[in-house]
Amino acid sequence: MSKNNNAPYRLYLTEDQMPKQYYNLRADMKELPEPLLNPGTKKPVTLDELSVVFCRELARQELDNETRYLDIPKEILDMYRIYRPSPLIRAYNLEKYLDTPAKIYYKFEGNNTSGSHKLNSAIAQVYYAKQEGITSLTTETGAGQWGTALSEACSYFGIPLTVFMVKGSYQQKPFRKDVMRTFGAEVIPSPSNTTEVGRKILSEIPDTTGSLGCAISEAVEKAVATKNSRYVLGSVLNQVLLHQSIIGLECETAFKILGEYPDVVVGCAGGGSNLGGLIAPFMREKILGNKDTRFVAVEPSSCPSLTRGKYAYDFCDTGKMTPMARMYTLGCDFIPAPNHAGGLRYHGMSPIISKLYHDGYMEAVSYKQTEVFDAAVLFAKKETILPAPESSHAIKGAIDEALKCKETGEEKTILFGLTGTGYFDMTAYSQYLDKTMTDYIPSDDEIAKYTKNVIM
Amino acid sequence: MSKNNNAPYRLYLTEDQMPKQYYNLRADMKELPEPLLNPGTKKPVTLDELSVVFCRELARQELDNETRYLDIPKEILDMYRIYRPSPLIRAYNLEKYLDTPAKIYYKFEGNNTSGSHKLNSAIAQVYYAKQEGITSLTTETGAGQWGTALSEACSYFGIPLTVFMVKGSYQQKPFRKDVMRTFGAEVIPSPSNTTEVGRKILSEIPDTTGSLGCAISEAVEKAVATKNSRYVLGSVLNQVLLHQSIIGLECETAFKILGEYPDVVVGCAGGGSNLGGLIAPFMREKILGNKDTRFVAVEPSSCPSLTRGKYAYDFCDTGKMTPMARMYTLGCDFIPAPNHAGGLRYHGMSPIISKLYHDGYMEAVSYKQTEVFDAAVLFAKKETILPAPESSHAIKGAIDEALKCKETGEEKTILFGLTGTGYFDMTAYSQYLDKTMTDYIPSDDEIAKYTKNVIM
Repeated sequence: MSKNNNAPYRLYLTEDQMPKQYYNLRADMKELPEPLLNPGTKKPVTLDELSVVFCRELARQELDNETRYLDIPKEILDMYRIYRPSPLIRAYNLEKYLDTPAKIYYKFEGNNTSGSHKLNSAIAQVYYAKQEGITSLTTETGAGQWGTALSEACSYFGIPLTVFMVKGSYQQKPFRKDVMRTFGAEVIPSPSNTTEVGRKILSEIPDTTGSLGCAISEAVEKAVATKNSRYVLGSVLNQVLLHQSIIGLECETAFKILGEYPDVVVGCAGGGSNLGGLIAPFMREKILGNKDTRFVAVEPSSCPSLTRGKYAYDFCDTGKMTPMARMYTLGCDFIPAPNHAGGLRYHGMSPIISKLYHDGYMEAVSYKQTEVFDAAVLFAKKETILPAPESSHAIKGAIDEALKCKETGEEKTILFGLTGTGYFDMTAYSQYLDKTMTDYIPSDDEIAKYTKNVIM
Repeated sequence: MSKNNNAPYRLYLTEDQMPKQYYNLRADMKELPEPLLNPGTKKPVTLDELSVVFCRELARQELDNETRYLDIPKEILDMYRIYRPSPLIRAYNLEKYLDTPAKIYYKFEGNNTSGSHKLNSAIAQVYYAKQEGITSLTTETGAGQWGTALSEACSYFGIPLTVFMVKGSYQQKPFRKDVMRTFGAEVIPSPSNTTEVGRKILSEIPDTTGSLGCAISEAVEKAVATKNSRYVLGSVLNQVLLHQSIIGLECETAFKILGEYPDVVVGCAGGGSNLGGLIAPFMREKILGNKDTRFVAVEPSSCPSLTRGKYAYDFCDTGKMTPMARMYTLGCDFIPAPNHAGGLRYHGMSPIISKLYHDGYMEAVSYKQTEVFDAAVLFAKKETILPAPESSHAIKGAIDEALKCKETGEEKTILFGLTGTGYFDMTAYSQYLDKTMTDYIPSDDEIAKYTKNVIM
């Protein structure tokens, strides 16, 4: 093999090399994602309408399709400096095991206590809220990564936080809850008696284990009912992809230092926050016609929004309280099968990612849970990092790309996003090791049922 | 304040700057630690005797007091490169919160799946064993960090591993067990029916939750009874401190780059493996009379070997199967109170650390569990890393040193070792947050009872 094996295992940028601006991919897209709609009027939401839900600056970022580069405030950079830059790692051992001519790189975002990339946007959202005099925040969390990241950011900036955690997760993942409490957050199992919507659901279904939709509703209700409070969200939104662009920007600089450029970029796709950030600068080069990189979104077969959903206007939440977005969706009432272990359970997909996929800039594949865990365990053994189930979808996608290169003999450079660690997902690993993990693929009828009310 | 605030938050050495040799502090000690004794003959153990327990090269390293620098084999460096160098981090936020003129640095060894520094020695021990044709390994684990690290190293080098895990931990920390299984290790709750000593104990006390001493005995029995098998140990031994010297050597290089030198080095002390590695090059400069750095070992009040134990010959294990070492000991039958959450439960202390402490080169302090967790939660909130309970002893020690500087106005440079993360210790954090965590300090009578048979 003639491939360059002189690259370091891990490349860390110096602080000087770290991005000082976020990059807004919308400013370079040939066609923009469809605007958010006010569900009452069915007209594009205005800045004023959106500012009721989000603080003004975040609402502005959500609607800003023009500004190409946005300065990152010093206070945000200061907190990034505690855990960033994240390393770009060459998977030499995985390459060797696969016997592939491909070069496999991964951007590892799990090197912080939240254990995932979610912290990148949490810090920004808390900072902007604090700047505008917001004195408390609310959010929901399912798998717990977003709630953990937000707890850290709120602790750092001194803003009280209430997290509504889906009761099922609260009970099954008590350690996750305790990490949030360690960072000072109040964690309430949802549904709860602290909100009207919670009390209503509890009176109807007293033994419910809750849902993400219900937790969102409770968090929004509490934020609206509390003076100077706002609700924050960790994925899907344009503002979140904007903040997450630092992942891709760091990769771009690192590849320049290495004298490389990715031929294929692979990322797991839940709401699209990591994927959108990872691909941003590389997608710009593709849109501008400078490069012909392939982009592969990897999703679970049990929640296949891109590969089997409809590109349509739908609600972002099951509670139908949010603006409507045009995106690939399985329908806002779709709930993945309970055997599905990872956090990629969202019915929809970032409008930016949806638009790029719809316009042919990206590909998408789906994998079954057990084959994703095959890849996760192989990766752990070869690269010594225990990956989160979500991230392991990208690992599986990257391995398959590398195996294609083995067949064709192509020395492609593959980049994938390793979004986080699996320390709080050992129940799923246990099931896999004990061979009790099962797969689920929704039927066409099931998908048709949940997507019949979306607005094409 | 005039102190230099231009240092980066995190300094990572480049691969070129990483140590290529281990440093053997014994070669520079004015007086050597006492030799290990054969418990039968009470004479110093020979290389041949020790080679029955450890592979030849590791036995040689254990007895080698002369070789100052030992080349690290390429295969070991290759695996180090996957997760090393570990960062040296400036705790700017903690400094600010404490309002101290001191500069606080910490060496963070938790950036790998094993979650601790244990991997540094695990890799070396597995490599040398494999070189000599050893085809399987056994070990014991209590808290689980060593077992996890060894599982990773064995997976990487392709050596089957059996881990005897104290049954109480096996039941209370099922996730820890599953991490080891993910890396391919066989994990057996101890006592078990797979060994003679296990069956004997089970017949006497059927519902025992096991002990570290029993797990060691089972692991040794299995290694001895299996062809080409050896038993390996993760702390206390001279060879382990030799491998862990890379922690201190990386720090030394990083401080050179920063133009700094530590006035105080603080480390948590269980068996002494991290502490011994962290201090090695700085202690050399003190021994040689070039620097006057203070060294502070921090141990839990519930297991105070340095501060309240005897400096005497004792067994390294409760099963009394190992050679005897002269060390600070609470007696090999001492077992810390069950309310003690961390991994610092060892009755003895590395002979090297013991000798340095005995000869006045080091200080030691002990802290109560709840005050250690006060420090842990403060650190998490300010520095965004969730520390292991063990590491948090060093945090508490460093905070107290920084507060002393606040009183005196001294701009000291403090270095402490952050040995690992607390992801698998959330039960202890829960107890702390729920205010059900209690402290325990053994009485003088209790310590006298367990130390009455040691050989002064």
